[in-house]
Amino acid sequence: MAATASERKRQAIASAALALFARDGYERTTVDAIAAEARVSKRTVYSHYGDKEQLFMLVVRDTYELMRERFAEAVDSTLRDVDDVEKSLVSCLREVVRAVTQTPERARLVRLIIAELPRFPALLDLWHGRGLTPLLAAPIARLAAAGLLTADDPTQAAGHLSALTIGQINNRTMMGTVPLTDAEADRIITTGVRVFLCAYGPGR
Amino acid sequence: MAATASERKRQAIASAALALFARDGYERTTVDAIAAEARVSKRTVYSHYGDKEQLFMLVVRDTYELMRERFAEAVDSTLRDVDDVEKSLVSCLREVVRAVTQTPERARLVRLIIAELPRFPALLDLWHGRGLTPLLAAPIARLAAAGLLTADDPTQAAGHLSALTIGQINNRTMMGTVPLTDAEADRIITTGVRVFLCAYGPGR
Repeated sequence: MAATASERKRQAIASAALALFARDGYERTTVDAIAAEARVSKRTVYSHYGDKEQLFMLVVRDTYELMRERFAEAVDSTLRDVDDVEKSLVSCLREVVRAVTQTPERARLVRLIIAELPRFPALLDLWHGRGLTPLLAAPIARLAAAGLLTADDPTQAAGHLSALTIGQINNRTMMGTVPLTDAEADRIITTGVRVFLCAYGPGR
Repeated sequence: MAATASERKRQAIASAALALFARDGYERTTVDAIAAEARVSKRTVYSHYGDKEQLFMLVVRDTYELMRERFAEAVDSTLRDVDDVEKSLVSCLREVVRAVTQTPERARLVRLIIAELPRFPALLDLWHGRGLTPLLAAPIARLAAAGLLTADDPTQAAGHLSALTIGQINNRTMMGTVPLTDAEADRIITTGVRVFLCAYGPGR
């Protein structure tokens, strides 16, 4: 029973911290406000998470982990059995965009990380090797082995696919700040995939 | 004489504001600190620039203007007389990267804009239609008319070229936070241009 109550408090603190950091930024968010939002005492926050910096790192880590899982599901569900490679890549990127737009806190947190990175070099370890590119490299290698793509360097190909689609969407939306219509997102994805296939299509 | 002193103060305030906003972010920077850094009174800051928000907007606008000029010079000097289109595009992107790395405040300011955008919607007007893509559209249209590229939609082509090169560099360096070796930047530019030319090369 005690462990459950403690776990509940822990969850409440983490979700209050995510909401406040995402809304107000790192500097503007106080441990007092997080405690009030989570309906716990300030001492409880400190006993669970140490200081504000540790709490921030934890919230960032959790958010990244959640996004990585969603991206992995999107990639897995669309690129497992591929017949029409163009269609499958378009579906994959659509699912990735859906995962991003379904978690608006993620966009805010990414912006926060970009802003706070010089002050928290440890965030770099979270950033490196994460994101969409490493998740796309293995299916691209598999599709190349099956003769559906031509890619000597699957990681580089994954970087190009990601830049041409999600990269362009991030740029257009200012990292999720500006809304994008589904039609516009679709146009970016389909033309980006077409450029990708000009370079990495079968028989290149 | 009075006008000159006033202009000198104005310049000192603007460069102090750029340095402090870039280093400490919007929230952490106070008008007091800007006044101290510029060696003027707080009242002088207010009389020249109104409040902190207006000062911030002005610094952002100036920085964007400077970057736009440098990008335009890079594009103009490399894409005016083109013989080998691949070589010229690679030179162009190298010059753009040089312009970015020579003004580190710009990287910090871009990160700041990304973080502060939800609180300053007016920054959006600055962002939209700026950057590299609109500057590349006209030369790409000219190269297509000369038969050196194939591009029905030069703006879209410019977006793809930008995403494949500068977009990838921004992603890799976390918007200029993480240093990148010249060799690494060069690899990203040359492979990005190669992918671009698979889709937009002559005779496509």
